[in-house]
Amino acid sequence: MSTFGFIEYNDANPQVKAVYDDIMATRKTDYINNFWKAIAHDPALLKRTWESLKAIMAPGALDPLTKELIYIAVSVTNNCGYCIASHTASAFAKGMTAAMFQELQAVIGMANETNKLVTGYQVAIDSRFQPPLELPK
Amino acid sequence: MSTFGFIEYNDANPQVKAVYDDIMATRKTDYINNFWKAIAHDPALLKRTWESLKAIMAPGALDPLTKELIYIAVSVTNNCGYCIASHTASAFAKGMTAAMFQELQAVIGMANETNKLVTGYQVAIDSRFQPPLELPK
Amino acid sequence: MSTFGFIEYNDANPQVKAVYDDIMATRKTDYINNFWKAIAHDPALLKRTWESLKAIMAPGALDPLTKELIYIAVSVTNNCGYCIASHTASAFAKGMTAAMFQELQAVIGMANETNKLVTGYQVAIDSRFQPPLELPK
Amino acid sequence: MSTFGFIEYNDANPQVKAVYDDIMATRKTDYINNFWKAIAHDPALLKRTWESLKAIMAPGALDPLTKELIYIAVSVTNNCGYCIASHTASAFAKGMTAAMFQELQAVIGMANETNKLVTGYQVAIDSRFQPPLELPK
Amino acid sequence: MSTFGFIEYNDANPQVKAVYDDIMATRKTDYINNFWKAIAHDPALLKRTWESLKAIMAPGALDPLTKELIYIAVSVTNNCGYCIASHTASAFAKGMTAAMFQELQAVIGMANETNKLVTGYQVAIDSRFQPPLELPK
Amino acid sequence: MSTFGFIEYNDANPQVKAVYDDIMATRKTDYINNFWKAIAHDPALLKRTWESLKAIMAPGALDPLTKELIYIAVSVTNNCGYCIASHTASAFAKGMTAAMFQELQAVIGMANETNKLVTGYQVAIDSRFQPPLELPK
Repeated sequence: MSTFGFIEYNDANPQVKAVYDDIMATRKTDYINNFWKAIAHDPALLKRTWESLKAIMAPGALDPLTKELIYIAVSVTNNCGYCIASHTASAFAKGMTAAMFQELQAVIGMANETNKLVTGYQVAIDSRFQPPLELPK
Repeated sequence: MSTFGFIEYNDANPQVKAVYDDIMATRKTDYINNFWKAIAHDPALLKRTWESLKAIMAPGALDPLTKELIYIAVSVTNNCGYCIASHTASAFAKGMTAAMFQELQAVIGMANETNKLVTGYQVAIDSRFQPPLELPK
Repeated sequence: MSTFGFIEYNDANPQVKAVYDDIMATRKTDYINNFWKAIAHDPALLKRTWESLKAIMAPGALDPLTKELIYIAVSVTNNCGYCIASHTASAFAKGMTAAMFQELQAVIGMANETNKLVTGYQVAIDSRFQPPLELPK
Repeated sequence: MSTFGFIEYNDANPQVKAVYDDIMATRKTDYINNFWKAIAHDPALLKRTWESLKAIMAPGALDPLTKELIYIAVSVTNNCGYCIASHTASAFAKGMTAAMFQELQAVIGMANETNKLVTGYQVAIDSRFQPPLELPK
Repeated sequence: MSTFGFIEYNDANPQVKAVYDDIMATRKTDYINNFWKAIAHDPALLKRTWESLKAIMAPGALDPLTKELIYIAVSVTNNCGYCIASHTASAFAKGMTAAMFQELQAVIGMANETNKLVTGYQVAIDSRFQPPLELPK
Repeated sequence: MSTFGFIEYNDANPQVKAVYDDIMATRKTDYINNFWKAIAHDPALLKRTWESLKAIMAPGALDPLTKELIYIAVSVTNNCGYCIASHTASAFAKGMTAAMFQELQAVIGMANETNKLVTGYQVAIDSRFQPPLELPK
């Protein structure tokens, strides 16, 4: 369910259908997940979000699986249940192994712990870590 | 600065010195950063945190640089200034390129945006994403 | 459900009933929502929270609907499911249109994204944005 | 300061300059604030972020000042110092009065408080608030 | 500094002065800290916030020092630098020892870590922990 | 449920069984809650997390119940439903009364509110609260 329910493919207007088609073609699937069907009530948001996501998650200096791991790290830290469920499934589909999942969760847990120790002990930034950093070539 | 100031190597007790020595040996550096010097007021915490971090950040199913990227993703989402500064510097030292940094930030930003769209539109989890997932071999 | 269950009107003590009566009178409804019935186990908290909310959400320099939009923005950012559901319903009751809902969610998503880009790129505050600002008349 | 420092107009490549020009033209100013100069190291991110922001913050079903208030509500909840400073200044420039600022902060504070009371008391969503809601015309 | 600067005692109107007087009398001090001087631009907010805080932080079923520890736990988790600094100082003034501070920080760190492990592993609530709980006498 | 389901005692390998045995012996119970059964897929994480938790939550300068209250404060602020449910049940088992629960929630709510007022009003830290603080004996 979602605030206004889901817009299914057959009920979608042409602008929404075009995005759905591109999602399915890009992902080589015939499945549109709930997120897209929920925000399709705002076709401009649907289009902008999909196009940004498609560009950002494409292979680049980081591979798509690494990007999924980062997505999960953000989603767990934000406690977004839907996002965790969907990106965990997606990461497995892209080749995440059980061992990778476990190390990912351990790093997320550890980072959240040390983030708070740093904060609680009010630790000032070492001068050598202060930006600007020299841009690596 | 930090709540109780920093404990420098020469002022440290043997238990703290042993951790400092291990940090420097493991990281092949003679520098102890502020975080450790701030929490050294609690030697048990210092030891437990360092040993957990050392185990978790070691090479495994994920390589150390990927783990740094995940650490940064958590730290940015938590808005922990110290953690962002130190792990960004550390990631560059481990081989992160400018292009990798930029893709990392783009994914973090996008994930934070879609996390909130999912939440605001109250999107229910697709049944196919519901755990338990089959454990990949 | 809630930690201690709900206190219904007929089971409430006079102090709680007085708050329930004021909620119904102020909101022109005969419905008390779960939040109030859950915190009624602490009558002092119930009274203080209701009186603060009533004062803060009243028409003023900002109209009540704008205040609901702000409430939703906070609740989505905090990922508070109950709060999102109840304030979204409430905003629609106060005149929010579907177009307003959609723009609200787009702004919330965008703000969450740029908050993290600013944080991840460690951007210092422009001197012209530094407080104190001159107080507008 | 920022991770890689700021790219000033005169040092910018044509793609970045085009975005800077559009920012200044749209906002009727000759000032480019630090955020844009920090992310200009990634011209694709700069362009996508600016174009999304420009579309989202334009007048629509919600007026630009209301959108700034929502932006501030998110930024305060996320504790993003830069974002608070820049959007507070921006909101005053768009006509926010001191009284509006004060009501905004009071609502943000109250929403954060009740978000946590709801959460701590584990309050279930009233069935009447459960989505889907009927879409208002 | 703060958005509109600080209102000092001698510049305060009678409503603000009355709150300042009560703060100093209640806390047995002649010092008004920056928070109050910043929100004094909104005398109604100042009064409501102080009166709520005074009631909530008073001795009750929990002693005032325990309440400060809880305040710090929230403030660290929210990454509120001002709040951490002021409540840490306040807790020491109320009798927190170094050992208590250290255990507090260790618990905060651990709780943040396990919160995220629970979330990342998508753990469902045990039926025995499901509310409603029986109210202890 | 959880990402990979739960590992029950009889299906556990010896390393996991050893941790389960220690949990039951330490807590004087024959019940292993879902969290441990979910992370048991990573026996090293299970062991490290349990041993850290056992050390941190043991009686010390702070008593175990106070530590549970702090755990709840973090969990509510992070909006971790599982953690709130399990630690609230646990705190009641350790002697938390209804009055203590209510004061705890009131402090959590208040702290979250004032955290955001401080942040929204951009209040600078009083020089007397700046670390380092003198370490109490």
